[in-house]
Amino acid sequence: MTLDDQMLDLAKRAKSASYELAKLSTDDRNRCLLAMADAIEKNTSIIKEANLKDLEFGRSIDLSSAMLDRLELTPKRISGMAQGLREVAQLPDPTGKVLNEKDLQNGLKLQKLSCPLGVIVIIYESRPNVTADAAGLCFKSGSATILRGGKEAIHSNQAIAKIMMESASNAVTSFPADAVIVVPTIDRAAIPSLLSLTEHIDLCMPRGGEGLIRAVSECSRVPVIKHYTGVCHVFVHEKADITMATQVVVNSKCQRPGVCNAIETLLIDKSAAKEFLPVIAAALWNEKVELRCDPESYDILKDHDYNKDLLLNAQKQDWGAEYLDLILAVKIVDGIGEAIAHINTHGSGHSDAIVTSDVHAAEEFLNEVDSAAVYWNASTRFTDGAQFGMGAEIGISTDKIGARGPMGLEELTTYKWKIYGKGQVRE
Amino acid sequence: MTLDDQMLDLAKRAKSASYELAKLSTDDRNRCLLAMADAIEKNTSIIKEANLKDLEFGRSIDLSSAMLDRLELTPKRISGMAQGLREVAQLPDPTGKVLNEKDLQNGLKLQKLSCPLGVIVIIYESRPNVTADAAGLCFKSGSATILRGGKEAIHSNQAIAKIMMESASNAVTSFPADAVIVVPTIDRAAIPSLLSLTEHIDLCMPRGGEGLIRAVSECSRVPVIKHYTGVCHVFVHEKADITMATQVVVNSKCQRPGVCNAIETLLIDKSAAKEFLPVIAAALWNEKVELRCDPESYDILKDHDYNKDLLLNAQKQDWGAEYLDLILAVKIVDGIGEAIAHINTHGSGHSDAIVTSDVHAAEEFLNEVDSAAVYWNASTRFTDGAQFGMGAEIGISTDKIGARGPMGLEELTTYKWKIYGKGQVRE
Repeated sequence: MTLDDQMLDLAKRAKSASYELAKLSTDDRNRCLLAMADAIEKNTSIIKEANLKDLEFGRSIDLSSAMLDRLELTPKRISGMAQGLREVAQLPDPTGKVLNEKDLQNGLKLQKLSCPLGVIVIIYESRPNVTADAAGLCFKSGSATILRGGKEAIHSNQAIAKIMMESASNAVTSFPADAVIVVPTIDRAAIPSLLSLTEHIDLCMPRGGEGLIRAVSECSRVPVIKHYTGVCHVFVHEKADITMATQVVVNSKCQRPGVCNAIETLLIDKSAAKEFLPVIAAALWNEKVELRCDPESYDILKDHDYNKDLLLNAQKQDWGAEYLDLILAVKIVDGIGEAIAHINTHGSGHSDAIVTSDVHAAEEFLNEVDSAAVYWNASTRFTDGAQFGMGAEIGISTDKIGARGPMGLEELTTYKWKIYGKGQVRE
Repeated sequence: MTLDDQMLDLAKRAKSASYELAKLSTDDRNRCLLAMADAIEKNTSIIKEANLKDLEFGRSIDLSSAMLDRLELTPKRISGMAQGLREVAQLPDPTGKVLNEKDLQNGLKLQKLSCPLGVIVIIYESRPNVTADAAGLCFKSGSATILRGGKEAIHSNQAIAKIMMESASNAVTSFPADAVIVVPTIDRAAIPSLLSLTEHIDLCMPRGGEGLIRAVSECSRVPVIKHYTGVCHVFVHEKADITMATQVVVNSKCQRPGVCNAIETLLIDKSAAKEFLPVIAAALWNEKVELRCDPESYDILKDHDYNKDLLLNAQKQDWGAEYLDLILAVKIVDGIGEAIAHINTHGSGHSDAIVTSDVHAAEEFLNEVDSAAVYWNASTRFTDGAQFGMGAEIGISTDKIGARGPMGLEELTTYKWKIYGKGQVRE
C-alpha cells in the first residue's frame, strides 16, 4: 500500500467511526472516558515500557534534555492523563444543544442544533500526554480523532491510544474501534497526504511551535484552526491606578513567562509615563525582567537606579517579538489611539489589556483592539479555557473562523439545521 | 509596483478601513447603505456605460450568450441591486450581540460578543450585481470587502463599487474609502497573491462553479468558506404518505432544477418501492424528468407506461452526480440504514430529506445524516437564507467550520471576549 492509500484508508476508517461515535449516548461516551482513565492507570507499566523505547530513541538522536523531559511519561503524568479524562467525563455534553429555533409562516419548524464535527486531525510535538488529552476532548464532543505526534513519541502515543480504545470497547457495546487512530508512520509525507483528504477530514488542529503550525497550514486543504502563541500587550492609560497597573503588568509578564497569554510589550501613555514608568520598571526589575525600551522610555529610565543588564534599547524587531521569557518591550504612546493602532499592527490578536479608571477609554480599547480576549483592569494571564469556566481546552485559537480564543468542548462542535414539515413544498 | 506589492498595499488599506468601519454606529452603516442604494439608481446610466464596455469585451472574446446574459446589467437588475441594499439596511445589526456572559468567582466579568470579521475577500464569476449584494452584506456586518469578479465584468464592478463608496462618504463623516475595493487587475496571479496575506485578510468566500471554488481553496492560505453546489437526496421511507412523498420529490427536483438545493438522487425503501415508485416516476415523467435507475428500480419501472427517453440505467458516476437539470438518479435501498449510508457517502452535506410518518425513522435520519440541513416531510428547496428568516444570504456553506448551511449576516461575524476586572491577577 502506498502512503497515500494508507492515509486514505485511515481517514475513511475514522470517518466511518465518526458516524458510529455520533450515535453513542452521552452516558455511553462518559462511561468510555471513565473506562479509559482507569485503563491508563492500570496499564501504567505498559505505557512506561513504550515510553522507554521512545526515550531510548530520543537519546540516540541526541534530543535536548528539555525535549527528553517533555517526552518522559512519569507515573504522575500518567495519572494526570487519567485524571484529565475523568474531568472531561464530568463536563456537559456539547452536542445536541438547541442554538436557535424558528417557526416559519408556512408551518415549518427549524431547529439549529450543535453536533459533532466528524473527524479531527491533531498534529503535535513531543509531549505524549497530549494523546489522551486531545483524544479525550474530541471523543467527548462526538468526533473521531486522528493523532499525529512527534516521531520520537510514536510508541508512547500508540500505547496510550490502544489502551483507550480497548477499554472503551469493553465499556460499551458497538464501540467504533477507529474512534482514535495514531498515524502509524513517522514519514513526514503522511501529513500533506492526510490533509488533502477534504472529503473525510473536517478539521485539523496543529499544536506546537510556530514552525509546525505554519508548515501544517501551508500544506493543508482541510480547514485549520491555528493556535499561535501570543504577542500580548498591557496598555497603561494616563488614568490608571499605579498600584493596580504595576500588579497587572508584573503578573501578565512574570507569573509564567513561557506561555502564550503572557505579555511581550508594555505600552504607556505619554502623559503619565514619567510618573508611572519608573515604578513599574522597578517592580519588573525586581523580577529580573529585561526591558527593551523605545528612545522615550529609555530616556525616562536611564536616570533611575537600575541593573544595567536589564535596560536595553529596543530594536525594530522587538515590536511584535514573542520572547516567552523574562524580557519585555516598552514603548511610550501618544494616547489610546496610538496604543490601539500599535496593538492591531504588532499584536497577534490573542490577549491585550488596558489599565485605566476611565470607562470611556476602557470601552474604546475593548471595542477597537482586534483580539480574541480584551481586558479592562486584569491580567492577560486569564485567557485559558479552565479560567473561562469551559472546563478544559484543546488550545487557544488565534484564528477568527470556527473558534476564537480558548477552545473548549463547544468550540469542537459544528451545527446542523433540522427542519420539521408536514409535506411543505416551495412555491 | 509588483503585483505582490500592489496586493499587499490593497490588503493593508482594506485592513485599515476595517478598523474605521467597525467604529461606525449601526445607524451610520444603515444610512450609508441607503445612500448607496439611491446612488446606484441615480447613476444607472454610468453603470450601463461601464457595463457596455464589458459586454463589448465579452463579445470580442466570444462569451456564450448565457454568459453575456449574466453579465448584462439591465435597469431592472440595477434597481434590484438598490433594492437589495435597502433590504440589508432594514436587517438587525449582527455585531455587538452578547453571545455568552459569565461572572467568575474571582470577580471577573466575561462577555462573549459578536464582532466584525475584518477583511473579507469575495471571488466570483460573471454576474456584476454580486458586487453590490456581497459588498452590502459584508459592509452591514462591519467588515471591509475586497472583490474580485470575472475579468469580463471589471468595468461594471468598478463602477458599482465607486458609486457605493462615494455615496457612503457623502452620507456620513469619516467614512473609510477603502471599505470596498475591487481588485484593479484581471491578472489571475492576483488571487494567490492576495490569498497569501493572512495577516491582513480574515476570510475568503469563493462564489461560483466548482472549478473556481476548488482553485481558490487550493491556493489560499486565508481561511475559506466554500459554497459548493449540492448533491441532495430525498429518501422515501416505507411509512411515507405517497401523495406527500410525490409532492416533496417533484418539488425538490423540479421547482428550480439548476440550484444547489434541488435534489439529484431519489432513494426509495425496498419494502415499498413497488407500490411507490411507479406513482412518483409518473409524476416526475410528467415534468419531463429523466430517471437514471439502479437495476432494481429499473426493473420496477420497465413494465410501466413511460416515455422510453426518460428511463435509463444509472452508471456508477450517477451516484453523487450533480446534474442541475431535469435528471434524477433513483436507487432502491434496503431500509433507512442504507439510505443514510448512501447519503453520507455520495452526498455533499448540503440538504437531504426523509418522507415518513414514523417519528423514530425521522429522528434517526435527522440525527445521522451528516448534512447542513436535514428535512422531515418537506422539500429540500427551503435551504435558503431568506426562507430560513435570515433576511439575506451570501451563500450556502458546505463547510462545517465557521458557518454551515445558509450564511446570513450573523455568519459573517466572529466574536471576542471582553473581560472586566478590578485589578485581578492570576495566582
